[in-house]
Amino acid sequence: MMYTIRKARKEDVPVIFSLIEALAVFEKAPHEVDNTAEQLALDAFGDTPHCRIWVAESHEGEIIAMALCYTRYSTWKGACLYLEDLYVLPEWRNRGIAKAFFKLLIEVAKSEHMAMMVWQVLDWNEPAIAFYKKIGAELDGEWINCRLKLNA
Amino acid sequence: MMYTIRKARKEDVPVIFSLIEALAVFEKAPHEVDNTAEQLALDAFGDTPHCRIWVAESHEGEIIAMALCYTRYSTWKGACLYLEDLYVLPEWRNRGIAKAFFKLLIEVAKSEHMAMMVWQVLDWNEPAIAFYKKIGAELDGEWINCRLKLNA
Repeated sequence: MMYTIRKARKEDVPVIFSLIEALAVFEKAPHEVDNTAEQLALDAFGDTPHCRIWVAESHEGEIIAMALCYTRYSTWKGACLYLEDLYVLPEWRNRGIAKAFFKLLIEVAKSEHMAMMVWQVLDWNEPAIAFYKKIGAELDGEWINCRLKLNA
Repeated sequence: MMYTIRKARKEDVPVIFSLIEALAVFEKAPHEVDNTAEQLALDAFGDTPHCRIWVAESHEGEIIAMALCYTRYSTWKGACLYLEDLYVLPEWRNRGIAKAFFKLLIEVAKSEHMAMMVWQVLDWNEPAIAFYKKIGAELDGEWINCRLKLNA
Protein backbone atom coordinates (compact mmCIF):
# COMPACT_ATOMS: atom_id res chain seq x y z
CA MET A 1 0.00 0.00 0.00
CA MET A 2 1.43 3.29 -1.16
CA TYR A 3 -1.21 5.35 0.69
CA THR A 4 -3.49 5.42 3.71
CA ILE A 5 -7.07 6.64 3.99
CA ARG A 6 -7.98 8.73 7.03
CA LYS A 7 -10.57 11.24 8.19
CA ALA A 8 -9.84 14.76 6.97
CA ARG A 9 -8.71 17.48 9.37
CA LYS A 10 -9.44 21.19 9.17
CA GLU A 11 -5.92 21.94 8.00
CA ASP A 12 -6.45 19.67 4.96
CA VAL A 13 -9.24 21.89 3.60
CA PRO A 14 -7.17 24.05 1.19
CA VAL A 15 -5.87 20.92 -0.57
CA ILE A 16 -9.33 19.27 -0.47
CA PHE A 17 -10.83 22.38 -2.03
CA SER A 18 -8.25 22.29 -4.82
CA LEU A 19 -9.37 18.70 -5.55
CA ILE A 20 -13.03 19.85 -5.60
CA GLU A 21 -12.04 22.50 -8.15
CA ALA A 22 -10.12 19.91 -10.22
CA LEU A 23 -13.21 17.64 -10.21
CA ALA A 24 -15.41 20.56 -11.33
CA VAL A 25 -13.02 21.15 -14.26
CA PHE A 26 -13.24 17.44 -15.19
CA GLU A 27 -17.04 17.75 -14.97
CA LYS A 28 -16.90 20.77 -17.34
CA ALA A 29 -18.39 23.09 -14.73
CA PRO A 30 -15.60 25.12 -13.04
CA HIS A 31 -17.81 28.24 -13.32
CA GLU A 32 -20.34 26.52 -11.03
CA VAL A 33 -18.01 26.59 -8.01
CA ASP A 34 -19.26 29.49 -5.89
CA ASN A 35 -18.07 27.89 -2.65
CA THR A 36 -14.73 28.77 -1.01
CA ALA A 37 -12.19 26.86 1.05
CA GLU A 38 -13.01 29.10 4.03
CA GLN A 39 -16.73 28.28 3.80
CA LEU A 40 -16.00 24.56 3.36
CA ALA A 41 -13.85 24.60 6.51
CA LEU A 42 -16.82 26.05 8.43
CA ASP A 43 -19.30 23.66 6.80
CA ALA A 44 -17.22 20.53 7.44
CA PHE A 45 -15.61 21.37 10.78
CA GLY A 46 -17.99 23.85 12.42
CA ASP A 47 -20.45 23.26 15.26
CA THR A 48 -23.08 21.62 13.02
CA PRO A 49 -21.13 19.91 10.23
CA HIS A 50 -22.93 19.64 6.87
CA CYS A 51 -20.57 16.97 5.52
CA ARG A 52 -17.83 14.47 6.34
CA ILE A 53 -14.55 14.18 4.45
CA TRP A 54 -11.95 11.45 4.11
CA VAL A 55 -8.59 11.78 2.36
CA ALA A 56 -6.01 9.38 0.94
CA GLU A 57 -2.47 10.37 1.86
CA SER A 58 0.71 9.17 0.17
CA HIS A 59 3.69 7.96 2.19
CA GLU A 60 5.20 11.38 1.55
CA GLY A 61 2.23 13.02 3.32
CA GLU A 62 0.62 14.40 0.13
CA ILE A 63 -3.18 14.29 -0.13
CA ILE A 64 -3.79 12.37 -3.36
CA ALA A 65 -7.55 11.74 -3.20
CA MET A 66 -10.66 12.68 -1.25
CA ALA A 67 -14.25 11.65 -0.65
CA LEU A 68 -16.93 14.00 0.70
CA CYS A 69 -20.21 12.59 2.04
CA TYR A 70 -23.34 13.61 3.90
CA THR A 71 -26.54 11.92 5.04
CA ARG A 72 -29.58 12.06 2.76
CA TYR A 73 -33.11 11.09 3.69
CA SER A 74 -35.16 8.91 1.37
CA THR A 75 -38.86 8.62 2.24
CA TRP A 76 -38.66 5.17 0.62
CA LYS A 77 -35.43 3.88 2.24
CA GLY A 78 -34.69 6.08 5.27
CA ALA A 79 -31.25 7.61 5.91
CA CYS A 80 -28.64 6.94 3.20
CA LEU A 81 -24.97 7.85 2.85
CA TYR A 82 -24.54 10.18 -0.12
CA LEU A 83 -21.17 10.49 -1.83
CA GLU A 84 -21.04 14.05 -3.14
CA ASP A 85 -17.49 14.06 -4.46
CA LEU A 86 -14.83 11.41 -5.01
CA TYR A 87 -11.62 12.53 -6.66
CA VAL A 88 -8.26 10.83 -7.20
CA LEU A 89 -5.33 12.79 -8.63
CA PRO A 90 -4.73 11.61 -12.24
CA GLU A 91 -1.24 10.22 -11.53
CA TRP A 92 -2.66 8.05 -8.72
CA ARG A 93 -5.46 6.39 -10.69
CA ASN A 94 -5.79 2.68 -11.47
CA ARG A 95 -4.36 1.63 -8.10
CA GLY A 96 -7.64 0.74 -6.40
CA ILE A 97 -7.98 4.00 -4.45
CA ALA A 98 -11.61 4.66 -5.51
CA LYS A 99 -12.44 1.05 -4.64
CA ALA A 100 -10.80 1.46 -1.23
CA PHE A 101 -12.92 4.58 -0.56
CA PHE A 102 -16.08 2.71 -1.54
CA LYS A 103 -15.13 -0.18 0.76
CA LEU A 104 -14.64 2.22 3.67
CA LEU A 105 -17.83 4.21 2.99
CA ILE A 106 -19.91 1.03 2.69
CA GLU A 107 -18.64 0.03 6.13
CA VAL A 108 -19.47 3.49 7.53
CA ALA A 109 -23.00 3.33 6.08
CA LYS A 110 -23.55 -0.22 7.36
CA SER A 111 -22.30 0.68 10.82
CA GLU A 112 -24.89 3.49 10.89
CA HIS A 113 -27.67 1.07 9.80
CA MET A 114 -28.21 2.81 6.48
CA ALA A 115 -29.99 0.81 3.78
CA MET A 116 -28.15 2.41 0.87
CA MET A 117 -25.16 4.31 -0.35
CA VAL A 118 -26.05 6.76 -3.14
CA TRP A 119 -24.30 9.11 -5.57
CA GLN A 120 -24.62 10.55 -9.09
CA VAL A 121 -22.54 10.19 -12.26
CA LEU A 122 -22.50 12.23 -15.47
CA ASP A 123 -24.05 10.25 -18.34
CA TRP A 124 -20.88 10.64 -20.49
CA ASN A 125 -18.44 9.48 -17.79
CA GLU A 126 -18.09 5.95 -19.16
CA PRO A 127 -15.09 4.77 -17.09
CA ALA A 128 -16.92 5.74 -13.88
CA ILE A 129 -20.19 4.14 -15.06
CA ALA A 130 -18.32 0.90 -15.87
CA PHE A 131 -16.67 0.93 -12.42
CA TYR A 132 -19.98 1.54 -10.62
CA LYS A 133 -21.67 -1.30 -12.51
CA LYS A 134 -18.75 -3.57 -11.66
CA ILE A 135 -19.19 -2.96 -7.92
CA GLY A 136 -22.90 -3.85 -8.17
CA ALA A 137 -24.50 -0.39 -8.21
CA GLU A 138 -27.91 0.19 -9.80
CA LEU A 139 -28.04 3.16 -12.19
CA ASP A 140 -31.26 5.09 -12.91
CA GLY A 141 -31.26 7.79 -15.58
CA GLU A 142 -35.00 8.52 -15.34
CA TRP A 143 -34.64 11.42 -12.88
CA ILE A 144 -33.80 15.01 -13.81
CA ASN A 145 -32.04 17.35 -11.35
CA CYS A 146 -33.93 20.60 -10.74
CA ARG A 147 -32.65 23.72 -9.03
CA LEU A 148 -33.84 27.17 -8.24
CA LYS A 149 -31.14 29.73 -7.48
CA LEU A 150 -32.05 32.03 -4.60
CA ASN A 151 -30.75 35.54 -4.41
CA ALA A 152 -30.75 35.51 -0.64
CA MET B 1 -58.00 30.27 0.87
CA MET B 2 -59.54 26.85 1.44
CA TYR B 3 -56.46 25.54 3.28
CA THR B 4 -53.55 26.54 5.51
CA ILE B 5 -49.94 25.34 5.40
CA ARG B 6 -48.26 24.54 8.72
CA LYS B 7 -45.35 22.54 10.12
CA ALA B 8 -46.20 18.86 10.54
CA ARG B 9 -46.63 17.32 13.99
CA LYS B 10 -45.78 13.78 15.05
CA GLU B 11 -49.46 12.81 15.09
CA ASP B 12 -49.72 13.71 11.38
CA VAL B 13 -47.23 11.01 10.38
CA PRO B 14 -49.71 8.19 9.52
CA VAL B 15 -51.50 10.47 7.03
CA ILE B 16 -48.19 11.86 5.71
CA PHE B 17 -46.94 8.33 5.17
CA SER B 18 -50.09 7.46 3.21
CA LEU B 19 -49.33 10.45 0.93
CA ILE B 20 -45.74 9.20 0.50
CA GLU B 21 -47.15 5.82 -0.57
CA ALA B 22 -49.60 7.51 -2.97
CA LEU B 23 -46.72 9.45 -4.52
CA ALA B 24 -44.70 6.23 -4.92
CA VAL B 25 -47.67 4.69 -6.77
CA PHE B 26 -47.82 7.75 -9.07
CA GLU B 27 -44.06 7.35 -9.61
CA LYS B 28 -44.60 3.68 -10.56
CA ALA B 29 -42.46 2.45 -7.67
CA PRO B 30 -44.69 1.36 -4.75
CA HIS B 31 -42.46 -1.74 -4.31
CA GLU B 32 -39.55 0.61 -3.48
CA VAL B 33 -41.13 1.82 -0.22
CA ASP B 34 -39.31 -0.11 2.51
CA ASN B 35 -39.79 2.66 5.07
CA THR B 36 -42.63 2.64 7.64
CA ALA B 37 -44.72 5.32 9.32
CA GLU B 38 -43.14 4.33 12.66
CA GLN B 39 -39.62 4.84 11.29
CA LEU B 40 -40.60 8.13 9.63
CA ALA B 41 -41.96 9.39 12.97
CA LEU B 42 -38.57 8.66 14.56
CA ASP B 43 -36.64 10.13 11.62
CA ALA B 44 -38.67 13.35 11.48
CA PHE B 45 -39.42 13.95 15.16
CA GLY B 46 -36.61 12.14 17.02
CA ASP B 47 -33.59 13.66 18.78
CA THR B 48 -31.64 14.20 15.55
CA PRO B 49 -34.24 14.82 12.83
CA HIS B 50 -33.29 13.69 9.31
CA CYS B 51 -36.00 15.73 7.63
CA ARG B 52 -38.59 18.50 8.02
CA ILE B 53 -42.22 18.20 6.98
CA TRP B 54 -44.95 20.74 6.22
CA VAL B 55 -48.61 19.91 5.55
CA ALA B 56 -51.56 21.70 3.96
CA GLU B 57 -54.74 21.30 5.96
CA SER B 58 -58.28 21.93 4.71
CA HIS B 59 -60.77 23.96 6.75
CA GLU B 60 -62.22 20.62 7.82
CA GLY B 61 -58.86 19.64 9.35
CA GLU B 62 -57.96 17.08 6.67
CA ILE B 63 -54.33 16.88 5.52
CA ILE B 64 -54.55 17.40 1.76
CA ALA B 65 -50.89 17.87 0.80
CA MET B 66 -47.38 17.60 2.20
CA ALA B 67 -43.79 18.60 1.51
CA LEU B 68 -40.77 16.82 3.01
CA CYS B 69 -37.33 18.46 2.92
CA TYR B 70 -33.82 18.10 4.25
CA THR B 71 -30.52 19.94 3.90
CA ARG B 72 -28.09 18.80 1.23
CA TYR B 73 -24.49 19.90 0.86
CA SER B 74 -23.13 20.92 -2.50
CA THR B 75 -19.34 21.34 -2.69
CA TRP B 76 -20.07 23.92 -5.40
CA LYS B 77 -22.88 25.88 -3.72
CA GLY B 78 -22.82 25.03 0.00
CA ALA B 79 -25.94 24.03 1.96
CA CYS B 80 -29.14 23.73 -0.13
CA LEU B 81 -32.74 22.94 0.75
CA TYR B 82 -33.73 19.67 -0.92
CA LEU B 83 -37.39 18.89 -1.56
CA GLU B 84 -37.63 15.11 -1.35
CA ASP B 85 -41.42 14.75 -1.70
CA LEU B 86 -44.24 17.14 -2.62
CA TYR B 87 -47.69 15.61 -2.94
CA VAL B 88 -51.15 17.14 -3.30
CA LEU B 89 -54.25 14.93 -3.17
CA PRO B 90 -55.71 14.66 -6.72
CA GLU B 91 -59.00 16.38 -5.80
CA TRP B 92 -57.06 19.38 -4.44
CA ARG B 93 -54.86 20.04 -7.48
CA ASN B 94 -54.89 23.15 -9.67
CA ARG B 95 -55.56 25.48 -6.74
CA GLY B 96 -52.02 26.79 -6.29
CA ILE B 97 -51.10 24.50 -3.37
CA ALA B 98 -47.79 23.30 -4.90
CA LYS B 99 -46.95 26.92 -5.70
CA ALA B 100 -47.74 27.94 -2.11
CA PHE B 101 -45.40 25.22 -0.81
CA PHE B 102 -42.63 26.43 -3.12
CA LYS B 103 -43.14 30.01 -1.95
CA LEU B 104 -42.86 28.92 1.69
CA LEU B 105 -39.82 26.69 1.11
CA ILE B 106 -38.01 29.39 -0.85
CA GLU B 107 -38.51 31.70 2.15
CA VAL B 108 -37.22 29.00 4.52
CA ALA B 109 -34.13 28.41 2.34
CA LYS B 110 -33.45 32.15 2.02
CA SER B 111 -33.84 32.71 5.76
CA GLU B 112 -31.19 30.03 6.29
CA HIS B 113 -28.85 31.72 3.77
CA MET B 114 -28.99 28.82 1.33
CA ALA B 115 -27.97 29.56 -2.26
CA MET B 116 -30.36 27.07 -3.85
CA MET B 117 -33.45 24.96 -3.51
CA VAL B 118 -33.10 21.60 -5.29
CA TRP B 119 -35.25 18.57 -6.16
CA GLN B 120 -35.69 15.89 -8.83
CA VAL B 121 -38.45 15.12 -11.34
CA LEU B 122 -39.13 12.01 -13.42
CA ASP B 123 -38.37 12.65 -17.10
CA TRP B 124 -41.93 11.63 -18.15
CA ASN B 125 -43.73 13.86 -15.61
CA GLU B 126 -44.54 16.60 -18.12
CA PRO B 127 -47.04 18.62 -16.03
CA ALA B 128 -44.48 18.87 -13.19
CA ILE B 129 -41.66 19.74 -15.61
CA ALA B 130 -43.81 22.50 -17.15
CA PHE B 131 -44.61 23.87 -13.66
CA TYR B 132 -40.96 23.84 -12.58
CA LYS B 133 -39.87 25.66 -15.75
CA LYS B 134 -42.61 28.22 -15.19
CA ILE B 135 -41.31 29.07 -11.70
CA GLY B 136 -37.82 29.61 -13.12
CA ALA B 137 -36.12 26.33 -12.21
CA GLU B 138 -33.12 25.03 -14.18
CA LEU B 139 -33.42 21.36 -15.23
CA ASP B 140 -30.35 19.18 -15.86
CA GLY B 141 -30.85 15.65 -17.20
CA GLU B 142 -27.12 14.90 -17.57
CA TRP B 143 -26.77 13.19 -14.19
CA ILE B 144 -27.62 9.53 -13.45
CA ASN B 145 -28.68 8.42 -9.96
CA CYS B 146 -26.56 5.55 -8.60
CA ARG B 147 -27.27 3.41 -5.58
CA LEU B 148 -25.75 0.45 -3.81
CA LYS B 149 -28.09 -1.48 -1.55
CA LEU B 150 -26.44 -2.55 1.70
CA ASN B 151 -27.47 -5.66 3.50
CA ALA B 152 -26.59 -4.22 6.87
